[in-house]
Amino acid sequence: MSKMQSSGRRKFLAQASMGMTAGVFFAAPTTSCAQNQNQATPVDNINIICPKAGYTPQIGTLVSMMNWMRNTILYPVQGMSVKDLDYLHDDNSNSIGAMLWHLAATERFYQINTFDGRPWGNWPAEDRKAWSTPMGLGSKGRKRIKNHPPEFYLEKLETVRANTLKAFAERDDEWLLSVDEDWGWGSTNNYCKWFHVCEHESNHNGQIKWIKSRINT
Amino acid sequence: MSKMQSSGRRKFLAQASMGMTAGVFFAAPTTSCAQNQNQATPVDNINIICPKAGYTPQIGTLVSMMNWMRNTILYPVQGMSVKDLDYLHDDNSNSIGAMLWHLAATERFYQINTFDGRPWGNWPAEDRKAWSTPMGLGSKGRKRIKNHPPEFYLEKLETVRANTLKAFAERDDEWLLSVDEDWGWGSTNNYCKWFHVCEHESNHNGQIKWIKSRINT
Repeated sequence: MSKMQSSGRRKFLAQASMGMTAGVFFAAPTTSCAQNQNQATPVDNINIICPKAGYTPQIGTLVSMMNWMRNTILYPVQGMSVKDLDYLHDDNSNSIGAMLWHLAATERFYQINTFDGRPWGNWPAEDRKAWSTPMGLGSKGRKRIKNHPPEFYLEKLETVRANTLKAFAERDDEWLLSVDEDWGWGSTNNYCKWFHVCEHESNHNGQIKWIKSRINT
Repeated sequence: MSKMQSSGRRKFLAQASMGMTAGVFFAAPTTSCAQNQNQATPVDNINIICPKAGYTPQIGTLVSMMNWMRNTILYPVQGMSVKDLDYLHDDNSNSIGAMLWHLAATERFYQINTFDGRPWGNWPAEDRKAWSTPMGLGSKGRKRIKNHPPEFYLEKLETVRANTLKAFAERDDEWLLSVDEDWGWGSTNNYCKWFHVCEHESNHNGQIKWIKSRINT
């Protein structure tokens, strides 16, 4: 998105950030960066990427990116109807609702992998049941994911994110940089996995905006 | 993308990273992170996000994300024909070629804003001439951007990126965290602007993959 698109977005970001971020807020842009992990100031500026209080420096910086990204992807879906969220552009498309649930599912599976140390795909039964369909999307997703109001998807995203932030606050930069030698795209660290969780939201946001602009045309 | 899609991608990443990264390489995953800015080791691992030699810690971490993201977005376009790059899915679509050029244009304009301190839109005449059409996309882009081989777009991306990395190497974390109080989405720092340049590639990658899967169907 360009700078020019953002005047309405700015207001939305201010609203959307309430309840979405880690519960660690700062007063002004210039004081938005934490000098130490235990600093506590009341207001955050979501457009300042840097270390944040409550987290070690690298984790806090990642958290600020994830918060910014989340607000960005929620902007195009504000005010959407159930019909919009269920819209299928063609026989192979995913609905916008399904993609939102898919983002929560992705984050949940990365939690299990990076926080609990379970290999990818080795999910507890309850998580497999809860998240496999939105994770897989495709024909099963088209069949099963529909008729939900926006709040349904937002609740999934928020609940999973709250658990991510809680676990991040309990870990440190050494954990974030630690390497998994046995990963599909090659040996990689937790920072790379979580950066992927973050940019993956933007990937689907591009598709959400593309599809949204074609609803009712 | 999921872990499961990545076996072929892994090989491509290894190839694509040659000549794409900053010229600062490390030997193995566990030595991929710089302890100090002047460290020089021969091989990088693109899947390790962390401070990198040649840059201050926060800038180096951002660079490692930008390198990872760039390799990821180039994966779906490898081997594309001119016809594929020019494909327009409908009357309002952008071609994949135009989107690749658009990413280079976006990065160039953020360079002028953040490195040269010029307000958004206040571009030197030669940059306005070179980049306005791919930046704007839309009907003008559909009319003017076509008939180019993949190398045409890749050269734009690589040349602009090389200049970004050179300028990053000459700056420090204080610059990265410095705040622009007069920005469209609210006061923001250079880290947030450059994180946006990075995630914006993923946004268009989502569209590129969506459109690619519908060519010849």
